[in-house]
Amino acid sequence: MASARQINIAIIGAGGVGKCFLSQLEQLAHRRPNPKLVLTYICTSKKALYGANYQAISLNNVSSTLASSSLPPLTLPKLVEFLKGSGSKTVLVDNTSSQDVAEAYPLFLSNGISIVTPNKKAFSGSYKLWQDIFNAAEKSGAKVYHESSVGAGLPVISTLKDLVDTGDEVTKIEGVFSGTMSFLFNSFAPTSGSGGKWSAEVKKAKDLGYTEPDPRDDLNGLDVARKLTILARLAGLEVESPTSFPVQSLIPKELESVASGDEFLEKLPAFDAQMEETKAEAEREGKVVRFVGSIDVATKQVKVGLEKFDLSHPIAALKGSDNIISFYTKRYGSNPLIIQGAGAGGDVTAMGVTSDLLKVLSQIA
Amino acid sequence: MASARQINIAIIGAGGVGKCFLSQLEQLAHRRPNPKLVLTYICTSKKALYGANYQAISLNNVSSTLASSSLPPLTLPKLVEFLKGSGSKTVLVDNTSSQDVAEAYPLFLSNGISIVTPNKKAFSGSYKLWQDIFNAAEKSGAKVYHESSVGAGLPVISTLKDLVDTGDEVTKIEGVFSGTMSFLFNSFAPTSGSGGKWSAEVKKAKDLGYTEPDPRDDLNGLDVARKLTILARLAGLEVESPTSFPVQSLIPKELESVASGDEFLEKLPAFDAQMEETKAEAEREGKVVRFVGSIDVATKQVKVGLEKFDLSHPIAALKGSDNIISFYTKRYGSNPLIIQGAGAGGDVTAMGVTSDLLKVLSQIA
Repeated sequence: MASARQINIAIIGAGGVGKCFLSQLEQLAHRRPNPKLVLTYICTSKKALYGANYQAISLNNVSSTLASSSLPPLTLPKLVEFLKGSGSKTVLVDNTSSQDVAEAYPLFLSNGISIVTPNKKAFSGSYKLWQDIFNAAEKSGAKVYHESSVGAGLPVISTLKDLVDTGDEVTKIEGVFSGTMSFLFNSFAPTSGSGGKWSAEVKKAKDLGYTEPDPRDDLNGLDVARKLTILARLAGLEVESPTSFPVQSLIPKELESVASGDEFLEKLPAFDAQMEETKAEAEREGKVVRFVGSIDVATKQVKVGLEKFDLSHPIAALKGSDNIISFYTKRYGSNPLIIQGAGAGGDVTAMGVTSDLLKVLSQIA
Repeated sequence: MASARQINIAIIGAGGVGKCFLSQLEQLAHRRPNPKLVLTYICTSKKALYGANYQAISLNNVSSTLASSSLPPLTLPKLVEFLKGSGSKTVLVDNTSSQDVAEAYPLFLSNGISIVTPNKKAFSGSYKLWQDIFNAAEKSGAKVYHESSVGAGLPVISTLKDLVDTGDEVTKIEGVFSGTMSFLFNSFAPTSGSGGKWSAEVKKAKDLGYTEPDPRDDLNGLDVARKLTILARLAGLEVESPTSFPVQSLIPKELESVASGDEFLEKLPAFDAQMEETKAEAEREGKVVRFVGSIDVATKQVKVGLEKFDLSHPIAALKGSDNIISFYTKRYGSNPLIIQGAGAGGDVTAMGVTSDLLKVLSQIA
């Protein structure tokens, strides 16, 4: 279609994923001049860029322009008013992991503003928020896409939606949903060789930047529980919250309340024997231990924790910090549909956001 | 959006995939009354159903209604005129593998009729036809989707498009693209155990209905070459045709021109020694032999044929008649993005068509 169309873009967040997204957006605007993408608002938690006349903010070096801005960000209700006032169709890109922004999605959507985001919080919080979001989108016709909330840029959510929307019956979803957990267990309990001590592997992962600043934020299983919550809801289960099903924490009880991540790492070696025994028990059965999430749709059982796998199982054979997600369905029969690859990292996470943006553009432009 | 919208559907083909699609379409129309899907035309190569006033054809038992129709199908140019005359937006579903229908795509598209199809012919024929199809769609705004032309319902084409459209650099694509070849080699050269004789495995696959009526139509490698042609073009290579790159045929020269598939199967055992030697050679290196396709984007090399893989390689570990497709890209680094699962069968092929239809509906309705 030859007519020149314009879509306004508003962005919250310019951290790791945010910066990668800005670079992809700049390339995209060059490669595909139609529809014309106009950045009308961008902010971090401290600073913002926008103009009263919605003038286009240049994508060239926008991070540094933003850093030197003297404008504070608009409150979320004011941002909605501002974006509505342009009279143009607008997509909000939420590149934060903020609960506050997530809770404002229904407000944005009911005002006709579409949303793309890697932010898990909106979709793995209370079931009421989930309903409010999709009801608001349904009513206004605004779109909401969140591919990168599970498995980063891997086509996990789009595949599950396609299975459900075409009438397949998803019976079970199983996989490794955390790059950090994948790396830890592939090193601690490799399919060949003996692997390192648990505490040493956790320290190595932290030093390589593969964990959160406090590794307990990975080891408590909540990140995986949030992803499972999202997939279970898409598969039709009304999961109340990520704490409403069994989630195994790998933080020893005694270390739950130590003050800092550093103190945790210092004291973790005293608990190595526990994990060593778990590994040995699996080995005696010719298996390896992995940290997985699973959803049994028929029995409505969702759980997150350690399980044992045969050495030839795709979950055991995973490499590096890859994710793997297996969809068992009626149509696919005994062999599942499997998606595998990097499930974390700025570029691949931003890629999921950019491809979501393209999907929204194809529908609203 | 609450307004009642209507989209007309026209279908060519009611064979294996076609029947599965009709069943999915009927469910879809029930589950999602908006937009209202109205079947205005359906035909096989012999019979058709349609009415001068575009009255809705009931999806209930439509296969048998069609079988007892006395109307012959419209010629393709007349079908275009007929569909245009309705004044409603229309999607053509081509569930055939017909070259003639494929060659009429530019005519349908330039008249604003969108297309969804598992038919490989249009996208793996001459490069000129490929260009004509996408140019016609670009000009008119009609959509064309063909997920099931590679890997049936597996999200192969959508994933490759997302990688390219978001600016990733695809460096290599490699995989097992034929359910038949997958089954044959997983049985002939399993990762554990010794496997059967080549000719016996081919016969078994034929008896199980896993091959074309004449198994040579699988063994000549053309089906895989067609799929590689499609993926290479989507990755940006101007591949002229599926015969413009090296394709290894597994049909012994002496049996290329025997009259029938049955005669071929009778005479195949005389050539078992050749395949046995190929298998033994791989075994001496601790590997197994598999029939794969690969695209090296940088060197523009596309090829189809036998290759050897370590036992721990995901291609070696494949099960049953599954397909596996690995995308190596700049963003994904050393570990590829992998899609795996059933790549043939009526239901999963129809699923790809149905999910394509949903994508088109979300854009045109």
